[in-house]
Amino acid sequence: MTYTLALLQMTANEQKNVQEELLLDRIREAARKGATVICLQELSNTLYFCKDHKTDIPSLAETIPGPYTDKLCKLARELKVVLVAPFVERSLPGVYYNSLVVIDRDGSLLGTYRKMHIPDDPGFHEKFYFRRGNLGYKVFDTSVGKIGTLICWDQWFPEAARLTALMGAELILYPTAIGTLEHETSEERAAFRDAWRTIQRGHAISNGVFVAGVNRTGIEDGTSFWGGSFICSPFGTLLAEADEQECILMADIDRSQVEQVRLTWPFLRDRRTDSYSGLLD
Amino acid sequence: MTYTLALLQMTANEQKNVQEELLLDRIREAARKGATVICLQELSNTLYFCKDHKTDIPSLAETIPGPYTDKLCKLARELKVVLVAPFVERSLPGVYYNSLVVIDRDGSLLGTYRKMHIPDDPGFHEKFYFRRGNLGYKVFDTSVGKIGTLICWDQWFPEAARLTALMGAELILYPTAIGTLEHETSEERAAFRDAWRTIQRGHAISNGVFVAGVNRTGIEDGTSFWGGSFICSPFGTLLAEADEQECILMADIDRSQVEQVRLTWPFLRDRRTDSYSGLLD
Repeated sequence: MTYTLALLQMTANEQKNVQEELLLDRIREAARKGATVICLQELSNTLYFCKDHKTDIPSLAETIPGPYTDKLCKLARELKVVLVAPFVERSLPGVYYNSLVVIDRDGSLLGTYRKMHIPDDPGFHEKFYFRRGNLGYKVFDTSVGKIGTLICWDQWFPEAARLTALMGAELILYPTAIGTLEHETSEERAAFRDAWRTIQRGHAISNGVFVAGVNRTGIEDGTSFWGGSFICSPFGTLLAEADEQECILMADIDRSQVEQVRLTWPFLRDRRTDSYSGLLD
Repeated sequence: MTYTLALLQMTANEQKNVQEELLLDRIREAARKGATVICLQELSNTLYFCKDHKTDIPSLAETIPGPYTDKLCKLARELKVVLVAPFVERSLPGVYYNSLVVIDRDGSLLGTYRKMHIPDDPGFHEKFYFRRGNLGYKVFDTSVGKIGTLICWDQWFPEAARLTALMGAELILYPTAIGTLEHETSEERAAFRDAWRTIQRGHAISNGVFVAGVNRTGIEDGTSFWGGSFICSPFGTLLAEADEQECILMADIDRSQVEQVRLTWPFLRDRRTDSYSGLLD
């Protein structure tokens, strides 16, 4: 019932082909260390390019399947690992999604999640680049367990975590690209980081699921990505946490804890769905 | 735009009339210290009696209006304070709710909230005593600001906080009776307390509202209520926090922060209500 999860917290190389080689090496290293599920950061093979409104997005985008997913599927099969890999998806000329794929240990591509909640804030102008997800919430029935996926801005929406948990996720993964801008004070930076971790730990607690956030690190065009990737239990307890350095962050996921925790605190039993219609307004 | 909130964290006297006198004194003290909104703990004038299945509930219950609310309305008018007062409500012979009333500074009774989510766990057998709330979620338009109210077990449900925030709450109050049982380890106790605070701070962050939890303290029939009342900002930052001692916990609520925080992190702007229908299943 237990598997080992690894999160790859990296800086991003501005050359996509270089970044992909670095990523593939890092995946091999995580597998050598015993990981069976490996999650990459948001937009794993590119810079976080959404700071302004001018990027050449076609050169960064991937089809599904396509050359990038082919490489990942081959490596997943070779290493016998589950891979969760986010990148820019090009579904049609001019139509892009902030997506991820989940690949099983036999190299099969289980499916795609397209980021449902899209930000548009100073330094994070994703509404300009991405269509909002149209595939709904996703739980992938991998050979090691049921894994739900959400991406970055989704993490601020309890609705997304709840829906993913109700679909059977035992673990929710949040690939992320979050950082602070140059004008922000150190006090603001600390409050942002704390809020980011707190709300995701809250999703673990309210749903009785493991939660992991994997964030990039390093400075890109003035934005300081803060790393701080973490893995927490279905009780919100931190199992592993990174600082701002590049790292492979690992923890064991004991799937039996999901039911144990829900028996102690049976929140899902007591939801008042008869009173929730206002959530759709 | 700013008012002062006080939370009364108390042990409970087993004599209802004694407890009420203690409470009224404590309300006077909080008003003297400058509070204009004063929130009492869950089941404010009684012990937490739901540990077993045998209490004489009619002797503990109140009608609305009734002698207890009359006393509170009179005191609110005298002190010019908003009072939030939870107690057992008897709506009909044999029909009881875990309720609270909100009283404005002129002594008028603004309305009633009946706890929507009812627990039934070892030591907390509320489904035996209480009908689940049938009045929906509530925001009270008091003379100092819009105050939403939820009670204890509600705090584990992001849906309840979200609905209350969407109705206009600037502050959500959670009167609470939460503690640990004799068999629980110190590690479990610490994890419970941390999860309790974390999930409520998460509601503040996801909704951009002030959140305050007020818990009783002291040991009742083997259950150790852990106090730990707190007030946090719309960013989840702690403004005040109690330990296990009886206390009047106070903080200033600057209502303008609600809109400021939501402009920085506009989560309410980006909710994907078109994708949330599964929340009603």
